[in-house]
Amino acid sequence: ALVTEVETLMAANPSLTGKTVVITAGPTREALDPVRFLSNHSSGKMGFALAAAARRAGAEVTLIAGPVSLATPPGVKRIDVVDSREMRDAAERAADLCDLFIAAAAVADFRPATVAEQKIKKQDDSEEDVVALVKNPDIVAGIAARSSRRPFTVGFAAETEKVLEHARGKLVRKKLDLIIANDVSTEDGGFDSDRNAVTVIDSTGSETLPPALKTELAERLIEIIAARAFAQ
Amino acid sequence: ALVTEVETLMAANPSLTGKTVVITAGPTREALDPVRFLSNHSSGKMGFALAAAARRAGAEVTLIAGPVSLATPPGVKRIDVVDSREMRDAAERAADLCDLFIAAAAVADFRPATVAEQKIKKQDDSEEDVVALVKNPDIVAGIAARSSRRPFTVGFAAETEKVLEHARGKLVRKKLDLIIANDVSTEDGGFDSDRNAVTVIDSTGSETLPPALKTELAERLIEIIAARAFAQ
Repeated sequence: ALVTEVETLMAANPSLTGKTVVITAGPTREALDPVRFLSNHSSGKMGFALAAAARRAGAEVTLIAGPVSLATPPGVKRIDVVDSREMRDAAERAADLCDLFIAAAAVADFRPATVAEQKIKKQDDSEEDVVALVKNPDIVAGIAARSSRRPFTVGFAAETEKVLEHARGKLVRKKLDLIIANDVSTEDGGFDSDRNAVTVIDSTGSETLPPALKTELAERLIEIIAARAFAQ
Repeated sequence: ALVTEVETLMAANPSLTGKTVVITAGPTREALDPVRFLSNHSSGKMGFALAAAARRAGAEVTLIAGPVSLATPPGVKRIDVVDSREMRDAAERAADLCDLFIAAAAVADFRPATVAEQKIKKQDDSEEDVVALVKNPDIVAGIAARSSRRPFTVGFAAETEKVLEHARGKLVRKKLDLIIANDVSTEDGGFDSDRNAVTVIDSTGSETLPPALKTELAERLIEIIAARAFAQ
């Protein structure tokens, strides 16, 4: 396995040699009570593929992963988290020491306002209920807004409509350096799919990549990001 | 594989020969929009173990499974569903023709009142939000309440406090023939655990089984259920 990894490292263009990269991946789970949670369909595949590609490109890679069932890419340091606040804390700590931060996780926008310590009992006479939600920290926006120790900051925009418009809005509002937009309503962009079709957007314009396996797409994205972030 | 299965069938006490058994298993997922959902920590292991044990006891078994990553036990017919209404429809159809219905699934009590067709956009100026919920159909209570084509009906009560009291309440309120109570707050009762510790309750009393592997516990539970349901 070591020989394979060395060969892979040498075969790739080592465009991130000497760089430290932090990547978040997967969904978060926000507890309502000890049994129930709010989550989303993120598989983590794109973030894990990016971590593998960044490692092959020569970077020191830390992968902060929500609850997914994926193997850690060789040579990558992995930190497992469950909810958005754990992911935020891990990301903030890791970002202090990194050159490039890629937020590929599908962090829940909101969490239940209170977490019940015991399983919430269904009242048999009530046909309706409400769950009060509060906004979660916006992890990538927090890192992009730093005035010091700010890495090159890349976000993702998983959208189901007006994909480029929504993604450009996020790029500006969150002060990101680059955003990767994908349409999760199409077959090639689905969360659980092995394939993806994305558009890379920064302040200078956008580049749409052809649909490809997430593993292949990750190689291309790391090349593009490395060139934008670290080219002289 | 066929020889192994035949041997296993012959080794077990064929206490359910000629009987048709329907078992639900796993969580349900209730969509908020194309990306987000409400779910719970059920692994499906207990329901799948019961399906395997019922099959080994000689029954024709249909397993109605929510989204889990478990292999179908040999000789068991499996129907995959996602949300509680799909599970209800599949369970009602299968129950028409069965002798024994075991509801081991952790069906969501509530679902979002509306499902957005597009991903819900976070409004950046709002720090709070609410999700309106409506009660889901109570699948096992619906089957237990039948006046005709009513199978022997077994439920589960996954509780975190006052376990026996809550379980007895459910047995009576839902008109079940038998209920299996477990404390999911303990290490041996956890949803993702391979072990479980349960108490079997019916109108005549209760029997607490020692903590055991879910596969072993399933054998014992099928013996107990078969004896209560079909003994002359």
